[in-house]
Amino acid sequence: MSYFRPAIDAMTGYIPGEQPKPGTKIIKLNTNENPYPPSPKAMKVLQNLDSEWLRRYPDPFAREFCRAISDALGVPTDWIIVGNGSDDLLNILVRCCAEGNERKVVYPMPTYVLYRTLSAIQPAQVVEVPYYADFQLPIEELVAANGAITFIASPNSPSGHLVPLDDLRKLAQGVSGIVVIDEAYVDFADYTALPLVEEFDNVIVLRTLSKGYSLAGLRMGFGIANPKLLSGLFKVKDSYNIDAIAIAVGTAAMEDQAYKNACAEKVKLSRSKLVVELKNLGFTVLDSQGNFVLATPPAGNAESIYLALKELGILVRYFKQAGLEDKLRITVGTEEQNQALIEALVSLI
Amino acid sequence: MSYFRPAIDAMTGYIPGEQPKPGTKIIKLNTNENPYPPSPKAMKVLQNLDSEWLRRYPDPFAREFCRAISDALGVPTDWIIVGNGSDDLLNILVRCCAEGNERKVVYPMPTYVLYRTLSAIQPAQVVEVPYYADFQLPIEELVAANGAITFIASPNSPSGHLVPLDDLRKLAQGVSGIVVIDEAYVDFADYTALPLVEEFDNVIVLRTLSKGYSLAGLRMGFGIANPKLLSGLFKVKDSYNIDAIAIAVGTAAMEDQAYKNACAEKVKLSRSKLVVELKNLGFTVLDSQGNFVLATPPAGNAESIYLALKELGILVRYFKQAGLEDKLRITVGTEEQNQALIEALVSLI
Repeated sequence: MSYFRPAIDAMTGYIPGEQPKPGTKIIKLNTNENPYPPSPKAMKVLQNLDSEWLRRYPDPFAREFCRAISDALGVPTDWIIVGNGSDDLLNILVRCCAEGNERKVVYPMPTYVLYRTLSAIQPAQVVEVPYYADFQLPIEELVAANGAITFIASPNSPSGHLVPLDDLRKLAQGVSGIVVIDEAYVDFADYTALPLVEEFDNVIVLRTLSKGYSLAGLRMGFGIANPKLLSGLFKVKDSYNIDAIAIAVGTAAMEDQAYKNACAEKVKLSRSKLVVELKNLGFTVLDSQGNFVLATPPAGNAESIYLALKELGILVRYFKQAGLEDKLRITVGTEEQNQALIEALVSLI
Repeated sequence: MSYFRPAIDAMTGYIPGEQPKPGTKIIKLNTNENPYPPSPKAMKVLQNLDSEWLRRYPDPFAREFCRAISDALGVPTDWIIVGNGSDDLLNILVRCCAEGNERKVVYPMPTYVLYRTLSAIQPAQVVEVPYYADFQLPIEELVAANGAITFIASPNSPSGHLVPLDDLRKLAQGVSGIVVIDEAYVDFADYTALPLVEEFDNVIVLRTLSKGYSLAGLRMGFGIANPKLLSGLFKVKDSYNIDAIAIAVGTAAMEDQAYKNACAEKVKLSRSKLVVELKNLGFTVLDSQGNFVLATPPAGNAESIYLALKELGILVRYFKQAGLEDKLRITVGTEEQNQALIEALVSLI
C-alpha cells in the first residue's frame, strides 16, 4: 500500500512562478507583484512591533484587520473571513464544498491553474469550460455544469479581462452551488462584483493584499460573503492561519487606501503605455484590467522570447498549456522596468 | 442540496484556547506559550526588514530557514518541510494519507484535539485508543488499528508525558502507514525521537517555533522525514504557505539555539517548583516534560476553579471531555506568574 491516497499519487503539484532571492539583479515581471513598495505606514507598524505580538498566539479571527476592511469597503465585520493569502481561502472553499463526481468544481479556461490543483487534491471532478474567443463568459455551459463550486477570476489571469456583473448575476442565479469571484486583481480594474454578495447568498468575493497593496510576501487574503456561508468555511479554516505580524501590518495597509489607490493609478497609466509600445512592436495585446498584459509576439515564438529575456535578466511568465503556447504574460513594472523590457524586445524581434 | 459537503455539515469546528488581546491585564496560562520573549536577534531582524521582502512573494521552500534548521539539528536540508505552524503540517498529512474507512487515522487518547477535527474534515475514520492509566503507549492496540496515519504527541498534551523511543520503534515497525511524532513540546523534554526518521522510512517528526522559541504569533513549524515521504506532502502544501517575514525572523531564532535553550532551562526549573507547590496544595500532578502541567484539584472541582481563576484574571485551560473533567492544564509561566497562580489557588481551596 502506498503511504499516500490514490489522488495524491496520481497528481503533480502546482508549480509556482520563479522566485529569485530579493537582492538578485533581475527585472521580475513574472508573478504580478506590484512594482511599488507597500505603504510606509505599514512598514512603520512592522518596525515598531512589540515582541509580545510574537510570543503569543494571534487572534484566530484577525478582528483588527476585519475592522479595517469593514471601514474601507463598507461591509459588516461578520461578513469577512481572513486567509493566509487568498490561496488559503480557495483551498478552504474546495475542502468545504467539492467532492468526487457529485460535487464538481467548474471554471472557464484559461484561468488560475491552482483551481485545478486544489480539485485534484480533494479529489473533486473538474469541468473546464473554454472561454469564448472574445472572452465572453460561456454562461449557459457553466450553468449546465452546475458546480458545487464555480470559480470565476475577474479580472481573469492570464487574459486580464473583467467579467460583466450581469453575467455573474446570471451564473449565481442559475447554479445550485457556490460562485467564487476571485478578485485578486480588482485594485487595477474599473469595477468590483462586491454588490453581488448582498444580492445572492451563494456568492463569495475573494480579495488579496498581494497585488494592490504590494504585500505578496505577507500572505494576506480575505473573503466577503453572508455569515451563513462563512460558517461552513470557519469550520475548515485553521484557527491560527494568519500570523500576528501579518494582522498588524495588513491592518495598517488596509487603512491606507489613499496610498494603495495612488500606486494602482500609476500602474494603470504604465499599463496603457506598455500596451501601446508592445503593439508598436507588432504584438497582439488584450485589453487588461489587471497589473499585467497577455501579449502574443508577431512571430508567435513566445517560448523562445521568454528564454531570451531570461538570459538578459528579465523574467516574464510563459505557460506551456493549450491556447497559451504563443503568448507571454507580462507584469506591469515601473516605467524604468517597462522601458528595459521594450528595449530588450526590440533587440530580440 | 447544502452548499457544504456532508462531512462539513456534520462536524463542529475546533475551538482554540481563549486569546485576549496583547496588553490585556491577564495572566495567561492557557495555551502553552513560552513566558519569555523571543530571541533579541530575531526581533532585530524583524525591525530591520526591507520592504522588498513584503512586496515580493516569499521563497516557496523557505530555504534560508531550512539551512538554519540543518545547522541546528544536523539533518540534511532536503529532509525538511516547512509549515504555517505545525498545525499546517498536520493538515497536509491528513490530506495526503487519510481517507474514509480504508485509510484510517489512529491515535492514543487523551491527546491534541486537532487530530480529530482534521480527520472529520477529510473525512477519515478515526480510531481513538485510550492510553493505559500510567500513560504507557497501548502499542498492540495501535498496531492492530494499522492507521494510514498514527499520531503520537511526545511530549503529549495535556498529560505532559514523553513516549519511550523503543515504544515508538515498535509502532513504526508494526504499522503499514505513516507514524507522525508531534514534538511541539520537545524543547522542554529529556530526549527527542529525531533518530527514528533515519531508521524508518514511515516516520516524520514535527516541530514548532511556537513553544520553545516563543514565536506562537509567527506560525512556523517544520517536519523532518526522508525526501520520498516529503515528496507527497509537497504536492499538497500551498506554495506560499510561509510568509517572508516569518522566514527571516524564524531563521534568526533558529540560529540562536543558546537563547532558546536558556529560556527552556528556566521554564523547566519553574515547572519543578510549580509541581511541588501544587502538590503542597493537595493537587495530584503528573510529571511533565512539556511547558505545562496537568493537575487534579483535591476536590476534583476543576471547572469551578477554572471559572474562579478567570474571575481573578488568571486563564488556565479546562477541557470538558471524558477523563479530563476533573483536571486543569496549567502553562508554566514566569516565577511571578506562577506565584500569583499559587496565591489565587490558596484563596480558592
